[in-house]
Amino acid sequence: MEHKTKIVLDTKGGDRGASALVKGAALALERFPQLEFVLAGDEAALAEECAALNIPRERAEILDAPGEITNYDNPAEAFYTKADSSLLRGLDTLSSRDDLFGMITCGSTGAALTGAMRYLSGEHPVRPALAAVLPAQTGGFTCLVDTGATIDCTSAMLCHFAHLGSDFMRSMYGIENPKVGLLSNGSEPTKGNKLVKETHPLLAADGELNFVGNVEGSEALSGVCDVLVCDGFAGNQVLKVTEGTAKRMMTDIMRYAKKTGSADAEKLFFHLMGVYDIGALGGGIILGVTKPVIKARGNADERAVVSVAEMLLNMAEHRAVFDRNRNHI
Amino acid sequence: MEHKTKIVLDTKGGDRGASALVKGAALALERFPQLEFVLAGDEAALAEECAALNIPRERAEILDAPGEITNYDNPAEAFYTKADSSLLRGLDTLSSRDDLFGMITCGSTGAALTGAMRYLSGEHPVRPALAAVLPAQTGGFTCLVDTGATIDCTSAMLCHFAHLGSDFMRSMYGIENPKVGLLSNGSEPTKGNKLVKETHPLLAADGELNFVGNVEGSEALSGVCDVLVCDGFAGNQVLKVTEGTAKRMMTDIMRYAKKTGSADAEKLFFHLMGVYDIGALGGGIILGVTKPVIKARGNADERAVVSVAEMLLNMAEHRAVFDRNRNHI
Repeated sequence: MEHKTKIVLDTKGGDRGASALVKGAALALERFPQLEFVLAGDEAALAEECAALNIPRERAEILDAPGEITNYDNPAEAFYTKADSSLLRGLDTLSSRDDLFGMITCGSTGAALTGAMRYLSGEHPVRPALAAVLPAQTGGFTCLVDTGATIDCTSAMLCHFAHLGSDFMRSMYGIENPKVGLLSNGSEPTKGNKLVKETHPLLAADGELNFVGNVEGSEALSGVCDVLVCDGFAGNQVLKVTEGTAKRMMTDIMRYAKKTGSADAEKLFFHLMGVYDIGALGGGIILGVTKPVIKARGNADERAVVSVAEMLLNMAEHRAVFDRNRNHI
Repeated sequence: MEHKTKIVLDTKGGDRGASALVKGAALALERFPQLEFVLAGDEAALAEECAALNIPRERAEILDAPGEITNYDNPAEAFYTKADSSLLRGLDTLSSRDDLFGMITCGSTGAALTGAMRYLSGEHPVRPALAAVLPAQTGGFTCLVDTGATIDCTSAMLCHFAHLGSDFMRSMYGIENPKVGLLSNGSEPTKGNKLVKETHPLLAADGELNFVGNVEGSEALSGVCDVLVCDGFAGNQVLKVTEGTAKRMMTDIMRYAKKTGSADAEKLFFHLMGVYDIGALGGGIILGVTKPVIKARGNADERAVVSVAEMLLNMAEHRAVFDRNRNHI
C-alpha cells in the first residue's frame, strides 16, 4: 500500500470563503492518490460541501473549529482568546498527531507565525521565518528568506535565516552545498545598509554556509544563489515588486493581443502565465518549526490549494528539513 | 531666435568609453535644434571625435579635463585629489556659468552626489537625493526617491525626500498636489519597519504634503502615487527588482518568438521594449541641488544620451524645481 500523506487545511481566513478551498481540496484529492486531508472549520458546513463535491469521507476528516481569526485580530492576543479558531485548532492538532504531516492556511500571517511558534517549536522556541521558494531564471529555485515574518531584523536573525534556508534547500532539492546570497544594493562586499554591513562578515565567517556574497535586486531570481537572505521588509519588497512588474507586463501583453487580434500573442500570454502566474504559486513556507506550515495567500483559489498540496507532498517525499534548532534567536 | 539649452556632458566614467557618449551627443544635437553641449574630457580626443562625427563646433564646446574618477575612488577623497576630473570640472563649470542649464554623467554615483552637494548646494548644503522618474501603469510618472544616494536614512530625510519629489513633480509635470506614498510592507498605517513607522505620522502631519499613506511594492509603479518615498536601500531594490523582472520576461518572450518563429511575438517584444527597456530610460535625477544633474547608468549608450538630453530639455522647458532648500538635514 502506498504511503499516505495527511495534511490539515484551514478552511477559514481566505478571501474566497471555505467553499473555494474545499473545491481545491477535492481537485487535489483527485490528482494525488496518496493525499488525505483534515479540513478544519465549521463541521456542518464542511460535511455538506464534502457531500456536494463527492469527496470520499475516508480521505477528508473534519476538525470542528467554530472560531475564526481575522486580519484585524492581534496575533498574540488571538492565541489566548481564539483557541477554537480553525487556524489554532489546526496547528494544535498538527502538533499532537503523528499521522499529520503539515498544514495549509490562508489566514492571518501573524497568527500563523505566532501559532506555529507556540505549537511547533520543539524544545527551543525560535522566531520562525517566512520563506518563499521562487522559480530562478536558470530553471532551479531560489529560497527567499525572510519575506515578512520579521520586519526589523538583527544580523543574528539573518544568519539564522541563512541556515534555515540552506537546510531546507539541501533536503528539499538535494543541493549539497546551497549558495547563500545576501540581498544588498550592490554586489561589492562594502555595499549595504547598516544591517547588511554587519551581517556580511558573519555569513562569510560561518564555515557551515556556502556564502557567495552580496546579491543585487536585479539578480534576486537569476539563480546566482539558492538562498537569498534579507530582512522581512526588503524580502517583502522583492516579492511584491516582482509580482507587480510581472502582472503589469502580463496586462500589457493581453492588451496587445486583444488590440492586434494576434493569436500568437495570446498563446504567448498563456505560456508566460504558466511561469509568472504568482496566484497559482503556492505560498510562504514557515521555516524554523518542526512540521511544515504553508501560508497561502489570502485570495488563494482552487488552483492554489492544489499547488500548495503538491508542494507539501514533495516535502514529504524529500523529507525536507524545516528546522534544526541550531541557532536560537 | 529660439532659446538655447546648453548642458555639460561628462564623457568619462562610462563603461562604453567617451566615443559612445559623443556619438550620443551627435544624435541628440541632430534631433534637438535648441540643444548645445559642453563636452568635458580629453580635449584632443574630443576634438577628433567631433570632427569625425561632423559635430558643429559652435554647438559643442570642449572643456579639457584630463583626470578621471573611477568607481574605485573614494568619493569624498576624490573631491580633493581629482579636481581635474571631467566630473568635478564639469560640475564646477556648471555651477559658475549662468549659460549652463544642467549636466549628464555616467560616472561614480557617490562622486557625482558629493560633487553636486559641494558645487550646487546654494547657501545651505543638504545631502542630495537620487530620484528615478518611472513610467506608471496609468500612463503618468512616479518619482521614486531615494534610489540609493543615502542607504541608511532617518525619518527627517524621508520627509525631506517627500518635499523634493513633490516640488519636482509639481514643476515638471504640472501636478498641482502630488500624491505622496510611503513604501511599506502593507498599505495599512500600522505596517512598516521602524523607520516607516516613525515617518508615517510625520508625513501625515505635514500640511504642505498630499500624503496618501503606505504603498506596497506591488503598487510601486501602479500610479497610486506621484512620489514614492523610501530609504535608498529599499528604493534600490524597487528599481533593480523591477528591472530584473522586466529583463527576464523580455528574455522569455524573445525565446518564445524564436522557438515558435512567430512574427507577432517578435513584434510584441519590440512593442514592450519601447515601454520596459530600462537601458534606454534616462537615469537618476539628483534632487536637492540648484541645477539638474542626471546620473546616467555606467553602461549608458548613445540612446541613453539622447533620452537624458531630452529629459533635461523638458526640465528646462518646464522650469523644473530641484530644490527649495526648505528643510536642512
